[in-house]
Amino acid sequence: MSTRIEKDTMGTVEVPAEKLWGAQTQRSIQNFPIGPAGSMPIEIVHAFGYLKKAAALTNQDLGVLPEEKAKLIAQACDDIISGELDDNFPLVVWQTGSGTQSNMNCNEVVANRCHVIEGKKLGEGERTIHPNDDVNKSQSSNDTFPTAMHIAAYKKLVEDTIPKITTLRDTLEAKSKAMKDVVKIGRTHWMDATPLTLGQEFSGYVSQLDHGLKALKNTLPHLTELALGGTAVGTGLNTPKGYAVKVAEKIAELTGHPFVTAENKFESLAAHDAIVESHGALKQLAVSLNKIANDIRLLASGPRSGIGELIIPANEPGSSIMPGKVNPTQVEALTMVCCQVMGNDTTVTFGGANGHFELNVYKPVMVNALLQSATLLGDACQAFNDNCAVGIEPNQARIDEHLRNSLMLVTALNTHIGYDNAAKIAKKAHAENTSLKEAALALELLTEEQFDEWVDPSTMIGEL
Amino acid sequence: MSTRIEKDTMGTVEVPAEKLWGAQTQRSIQNFPIGPAGSMPIEIVHAFGYLKKAAALTNQDLGVLPEEKAKLIAQACDDIISGELDDNFPLVVWQTGSGTQSNMNCNEVVANRCHVIEGKKLGEGERTIHPNDDVNKSQSSNDTFPTAMHIAAYKKLVEDTIPKITTLRDTLEAKSKAMKDVVKIGRTHWMDATPLTLGQEFSGYVSQLDHGLKALKNTLPHLTELALGGTAVGTGLNTPKGYAVKVAEKIAELTGHPFVTAENKFESLAAHDAIVESHGALKQLAVSLNKIANDIRLLASGPRSGIGELIIPANEPGSSIMPGKVNPTQVEALTMVCCQVMGNDTTVTFGGANGHFELNVYKPVMVNALLQSATLLGDACQAFNDNCAVGIEPNQARIDEHLRNSLMLVTALNTHIGYDNAAKIAKKAHAENTSLKEAALALELLTEEQFDEWVDPSTMIGEL
Amino acid sequence: MSTRIEKDTMGTVEVPAEKLWGAQTQRSIQNFPIGPAGSMPIEIVHAFGYLKKAAALTNQDLGVLPEEKAKLIAQACDDIISGELDDNFPLVVWQTGSGTQSNMNCNEVVANRCHVIEGKKLGEGERTIHPNDDVNKSQSSNDTFPTAMHIAAYKKLVEDTIPKITTLRDTLEAKSKAMKDVVKIGRTHWMDATPLTLGQEFSGYVSQLDHGLKALKNTLPHLTELALGGTAVGTGLNTPKGYAVKVAEKIAELTGHPFVTAENKFESLAAHDAIVESHGALKQLAVSLNKIANDIRLLASGPRSGIGELIIPANEPGSSIMPGKVNPTQVEALTMVCCQVMGNDTTVTFGGANGHFELNVYKPVMVNALLQSATLLGDACQAFNDNCAVGIEPNQARIDEHLRNSLMLVTALNTHIGYDNAAKIAKKAHAENTSLKEAALALELLTEEQFDEWVDPSTMIGEL
Amino acid sequence: MSTRIEKDTMGTVEVPAEKLWGAQTQRSIQNFPIGPAGSMPIEIVHAFGYLKKAAALTNQDLGVLPEEKAKLIAQACDDIISGELDDNFPLVVWQTGSGTQSNMNCNEVVANRCHVIEGKKLGEGERTIHPNDDVNKSQSSNDTFPTAMHIAAYKKLVEDTIPKITTLRDTLEAKSKAMKDVVKIGRTHWMDATPLTLGQEFSGYVSQLDHGLKALKNTLPHLTELALGGTAVGTGLNTPKGYAVKVAEKIAELTGHPFVTAENKFESLAAHDAIVESHGALKQLAVSLNKIANDIRLLASGPRSGIGELIIPANEPGSSIMPGKVNPTQVEALTMVCCQVMGNDTTVTFGGANGHFELNVYKPVMVNALLQSATLLGDACQAFNDNCAVGIEPNQARIDEHLRNSLMLVTALNTHIGYDNAAKIAKKAHAENTSLKEAALALELLTEEQFDEWVDPSTMIGEL
Repeated sequence: MSTRIEKDTMGTVEVPAEKLWGAQTQRSIQNFPIGPAGSMPIEIVHAFGYLKKAAALTNQDLGVLPEEKAKLIAQACDDIISGELDDNFPLVVWQTGSGTQSNMNCNEVVANRCHVIEGKKLGEGERTIHPNDDVNKSQSSNDTFPTAMHIAAYKKLVEDTIPKITTLRDTLEAKSKAMKDVVKIGRTHWMDATPLTLGQEFSGYVSQLDHGLKALKNTLPHLTELALGGTAVGTGLNTPKGYAVKVAEKIAELTGHPFVTAENKFESLAAHDAIVESHGALKQLAVSLNKIANDIRLLASGPRSGIGELIIPANEPGSSIMPGKVNPTQVEALTMVCCQVMGNDTTVTFGGANGHFELNVYKPVMVNALLQSATLLGDACQAFNDNCAVGIEPNQARIDEHLRNSLMLVTALNTHIGYDNAAKIAKKAHAENTSLKEAALALELLTEEQFDEWVDPSTMIGEL
Repeated sequence: MSTRIEKDTMGTVEVPAEKLWGAQTQRSIQNFPIGPAGSMPIEIVHAFGYLKKAAALTNQDLGVLPEEKAKLIAQACDDIISGELDDNFPLVVWQTGSGTQSNMNCNEVVANRCHVIEGKKLGEGERTIHPNDDVNKSQSSNDTFPTAMHIAAYKKLVEDTIPKITTLRDTLEAKSKAMKDVVKIGRTHWMDATPLTLGQEFSGYVSQLDHGLKALKNTLPHLTELALGGTAVGTGLNTPKGYAVKVAEKIAELTGHPFVTAENKFESLAAHDAIVESHGALKQLAVSLNKIANDIRLLASGPRSGIGELIIPANEPGSSIMPGKVNPTQVEALTMVCCQVMGNDTTVTFGGANGHFELNVYKPVMVNALLQSATLLGDACQAFNDNCAVGIEPNQARIDEHLRNSLMLVTALNTHIGYDNAAKIAKKAHAENTSLKEAALALELLTEEQFDEWVDPSTMIGEL
Repeated sequence: MSTRIEKDTMGTVEVPAEKLWGAQTQRSIQNFPIGPAGSMPIEIVHAFGYLKKAAALTNQDLGVLPEEKAKLIAQACDDIISGELDDNFPLVVWQTGSGTQSNMNCNEVVANRCHVIEGKKLGEGERTIHPNDDVNKSQSSNDTFPTAMHIAAYKKLVEDTIPKITTLRDTLEAKSKAMKDVVKIGRTHWMDATPLTLGQEFSGYVSQLDHGLKALKNTLPHLTELALGGTAVGTGLNTPKGYAVKVAEKIAELTGHPFVTAENKFESLAAHDAIVESHGALKQLAVSLNKIANDIRLLASGPRSGIGELIIPANEPGSSIMPGKVNPTQVEALTMVCCQVMGNDTTVTFGGANGHFELNVYKPVMVNALLQSATLLGDACQAFNDNCAVGIEPNQARIDEHLRNSLMLVTALNTHIGYDNAAKIAKKAHAENTSLKEAALALELLTEEQFDEWVDPSTMIGEL
Repeated sequence: MSTRIEKDTMGTVEVPAEKLWGAQTQRSIQNFPIGPAGSMPIEIVHAFGYLKKAAALTNQDLGVLPEEKAKLIAQACDDIISGELDDNFPLVVWQTGSGTQSNMNCNEVVANRCHVIEGKKLGEGERTIHPNDDVNKSQSSNDTFPTAMHIAAYKKLVEDTIPKITTLRDTLEAKSKAMKDVVKIGRTHWMDATPLTLGQEFSGYVSQLDHGLKALKNTLPHLTELALGGTAVGTGLNTPKGYAVKVAEKIAELTGHPFVTAENKFESLAAHDAIVESHGALKQLAVSLNKIANDIRLLASGPRSGIGELIIPANEPGSSIMPGKVNPTQVEALTMVCCQVMGNDTTVTFGGANGHFELNVYKPVMVNALLQSATLLGDACQAFNDNCAVGIEPNQARIDEHLRNSLMLVTALNTHIGYDNAAKIAKKAHAENTSLKEAALALELLTEEQFDEWVDPSTMIGEL
């Protein structure tokens, strides 16, 4: 590998000749060979693109950075935002807990990219742009990294996760409406219970997701608060007057999202409760999705010796040994994702709880977990929607058979003959394996006409 | 122990003669000897008092329960609400997952209490009130227990937890204001950093709690939704028309809290995402409190070989072997509570994710965890407030000594002589154990006048 | 309440006249009103009884405590061990993280009990025994509390938890043997699969518990290591020569368990990895029990519209509204306990990870979680065993019906006609709702004789 | 992209022309676009290489696969094991929960690789080797995937994780020995306590890791048990007699590790308690490492306003804004890894608890979490060792200063003048900011000679 020399305050380092990064990035590569390379989420890199551009333009506006420098930096940042420079960000999550090295990775790439934009050769000649004094001007890792965390998290949730979960929610609502007249047996404690409609059952899923999406949206305002302008410890040292407010406005403008400067920068650097809060809502959604997905696989179980009340699409051969087997694989992918999200919540909790003094140094692990959860939940909901939910159909024959057999229709008799008498009927029918009606008549607790009038599943499902 | 005979649909059972409970409660005692007796939270019992009273009155209003029965039941419920009957609720959390046995415990106690109110002797004569047909009228365990969960949780959070956390928040804000002029060294990565004020440091804590309290309040609307009226599977079978809305209004009236009937009862029985949601916010507060409490113990560490910048009250002898030792015991109690809350969050998550079909059968464990977390967090904040936070004082001598020695004041020079030159000064001072000024002058990077003007902690703390 | 005056190095305090505790206990009551009173596990109190007695006797043996003092202390300790003095231990878990106040509670109770044993009146006259100088001699909270943790945890696990889980394991093994010839359909992905016997299915549960019990037993040696003799920071300051080894031997003798002095006392005070380790094994058992219990409720689901292959005992009326309903309540209690144990594992993990320097100050919360998990798991296994597992019976009719209908018996044809042809048969039978044989013959892929010979469930279950 | 046609029992699919995978792999790519491509751990792929080879050779030995087919398959497997075919495994973790698609991915790649080895062109001509009938012979996804899980996990732990953690343990032991005479102040509750040596402090870390490594090794036997031979539901359907034992022996031979056939295959398919068990031990190590790493960063805090008793290597510029700042970055990487491992434990727990009937369908998420934890813990320990631990040095001046100032040396007086008198001295010295000796003499509780004899830190550190 051909290399060139870069240097920082500690001395010189060899870096790959064609890469835009500098000495500090290279040191990080060497010092943190932990897990696969490049594990720092690319969403963080792109978020840095926005914030470095916004900082440069704001610095220019406030008169602390010459226009030509600001322009150069902004152009380099656009190349980061576009994804063109993705392979110049080789660092891992498991680096310094402030993300300093990823901030410096960005500073170095921008500085060198500007050098190239100016038509100069990497590693040769003076650089117009200094990674610290220019690209990082009015900034610190301690305020840029949490700002990138919020930009990346907000964008991911609003642009990707929420729309995908909403797609599934809408499909479930459409199914609920389509199946609103399918009366079926209810199950509580896994045991046969009184009837309801499939539409009602699915309406519960929709309600869960509605509440979950509302809970997630409740957390977004905290994420719109940006740390930028706090610099080293939250005081805003080395920033020009008015900078914090303006740079947040600039980020809002560049991203199209309602970012604002955080009212309290000390919190923004020292704690990441906003990440804890948003991840908590993702976990709640995982809890809901786990319930919904489980129900669907259980209702679709069989085909002959399970519940079998739903039919779900067969997308692939289900078994390498059992020919013709079809499995609820989309449910399995989704519920595995739910497991991961629940575990990530513990990770985020532990990281969030362990900030000290002016800085929480669990930034990369926290945002990595949030972005993973947000990505996986969104993707899994979309896949589950496209390859399973949209194709769900009731298995009417099976549904009818279960409903017909149910002993819990006896509940309708409580208000007519009392709980204790109703219990006698159910127990007799169960013990003698007969129908409820046979048992009821044998016990002479009511007439056949009364039974037929009172025990009618279609009247036991409430007002629809 | 003297006993009397009670019976249910399964037969007869002996119960303690003087206790108000009946056969099903006794069966539960015998079938679930798991952990200490009576572990079902008393808040659930009291919540059942409200809901049984509200149900009776609503049943009367809707013409399905005679006034005299309703009155009797309401009177018995008042005795439950007042706490007078607490020792008639011996069941444990670890019973059926629907809480059916606690619902029946309440039904039985009410029925027998009515018997006693009527001047009759327990176990003798016909009872006017039937546990199922009267006390449980228009109800099912499946909708009463989750209703009791929401009543108990909402009351606890609003009446106890939030006020106590708010008390601590207010004390921290008062401390922040009182210490707004105390300039001190900042610390990031546990290493000396640029200065800020103690007031600023504490303002971050206030901001954390403000965000956490807001997050907790965001979850309350979900808790105000009551399942009552859904009965067995959510359809409202065996309830009179209009019942669900009216009974929720009655509960709101009795409790003074804005409870409403849940729009979707299927969710209310089959999922407890509202508990997951509220506990998630408690967990977030635990994360915040852990950070705050840790900071305070670290700042108060010493007295001679730690940080020592804060003085906290000495409430008790700290050591059984080291005479004169004083420890941050309130911090320790609070952070242990935070551990418990974080663990409870896993419990709630696991329980919440495992509902199936029309019923989640992890109700008791979920609400037990929520009530424990809410109680402990509130109590620990109050104790921490009263016995620690209100007495916090700055240790000015130590604060000044640390500030004077700091090498990171060098950061103020970045904008004057550049990051690289500033780094040279800091490194030289560190290596030679001198002051920054000595190093700066030795390097001839600026004049003494410039140093004194530029490196002034009081100008490095931003606009207050 | 009548009171008397007690004092410590901080001054005087009023305590209830009839209680044996002293000033420091009373301060703790006042300073830590967090959650219900007396939450410190009583097992810890009893463990302190053993260790204080052992320490006194060892101090006597080593010549640093007069025999008459040692005898008095030992007698008072016997009263603690017997449970006679339980109501003199009012402290909560949520106190100082070293458990100092519970250590002092014990020291004070022993000192005052000795006073009473000597025939003197509480609060009057000089005490022969000083709480610190005599009862706590050669000890510190920092080594006594972790010693009490290990004694209490080891005793609970070995005397209670392991025997109870083993009882359930043995019942499941007996069931496995009793049902070894019951051939039934297998289920993978919740879908019908190839057959196995009920005995085989249950043998998997036994194997899980065998591995789990082995894992739990693997953790016991770490728990046998006692911190006692380490005193304040692990160095053994203020202990006589040979003390640590001898006092552990004495505890082993008094308890009948193989306790030894920890080889490294610095670990024993500063970390509680032994608690983390043992709780990890309890969590593994919770994972196993959750699977086993779930399977049993699912196999017993119905009675008419579920799986219905097992019959479990009906212990109580299952529903307050649905007459005659029987629910798998023992499963529900057990799986709720599993949730709690999983959450407690997070609590223990968080506490264990946050020790600093010479002391972990999450001792009470950690041991409380361990003892709760150990108690609940044991009790729930015993209840589940007695009230469910021993009564499990196969529902032969249902089992046969499911087996007969299965399409996955086709798997036996793979080795005769190939996977692809076998798949054709299964798919045809499924699509046309016919038997496998009909589909096979219609496709002319084999003869009826071949089918009957090759597709025989009784030959598909391996060597038993 | 140029494509060719592949087919399975569901029909035909287009796959990239140059890739070795077939129809089922391609379907999985299309059906599960969840998270980044190729997330299934490569260790699983390589483990499949071993097992497919072992199966082929065992099938040959037992006469159910012709030698020429076995040889071909074995050769293709060698190419998988070597890593040469890594980019033919594009599937994600978030697929079917049985890992069926990854098993089929391997079956398809082997079949096509054999085709190429035979000199034929992909997609043209008959294949000698059938993915199901030959490569998957005597196997099922349900037994191969858990076998691959155990092979991959065992290899990773034994070949990578344990050696790397042991390296760190050995360094810490060397440091403990090197610093055995450095007497320093102890700290409990973050407060000054009695003295110990740095060597003693580090010996606690070594003891933690020794116990943790022992705990991890205790879990290895469970991992050596292989499911292979259980096929679809654990019965061994479609396997030749003696297969299970022989194929495990073959895998042991090929890998050089002591794998054996699992005694109970029903457990091996339906539960992954072995993964839960091993991950529990990794979590315990994370707990230990978190404590150790935290201590080191706290002891190295400063350089001027922290504890400052250790000097750790400066590996990179620490701040983008604070020149000359050096941070404990290796500690931060390691503790972030610990967070991830703790979260992964929740993931593994949740997945492990949710198997049903004959199959746990959380296989990929469980093994992914285990392999990630094992990799990150090992790598982070190695990086921490190389870039931090080996360079740790005591800061003698600071250590001496702290020791000299300590008030807790007073503890040595307990045995001479009693706890209460000793407390008076400490409190006076603290209140008046004097030395202990000054306070002691002022109180006339002992002579100067006595003080000097009794209060000697070098005699307070026990027998080394």
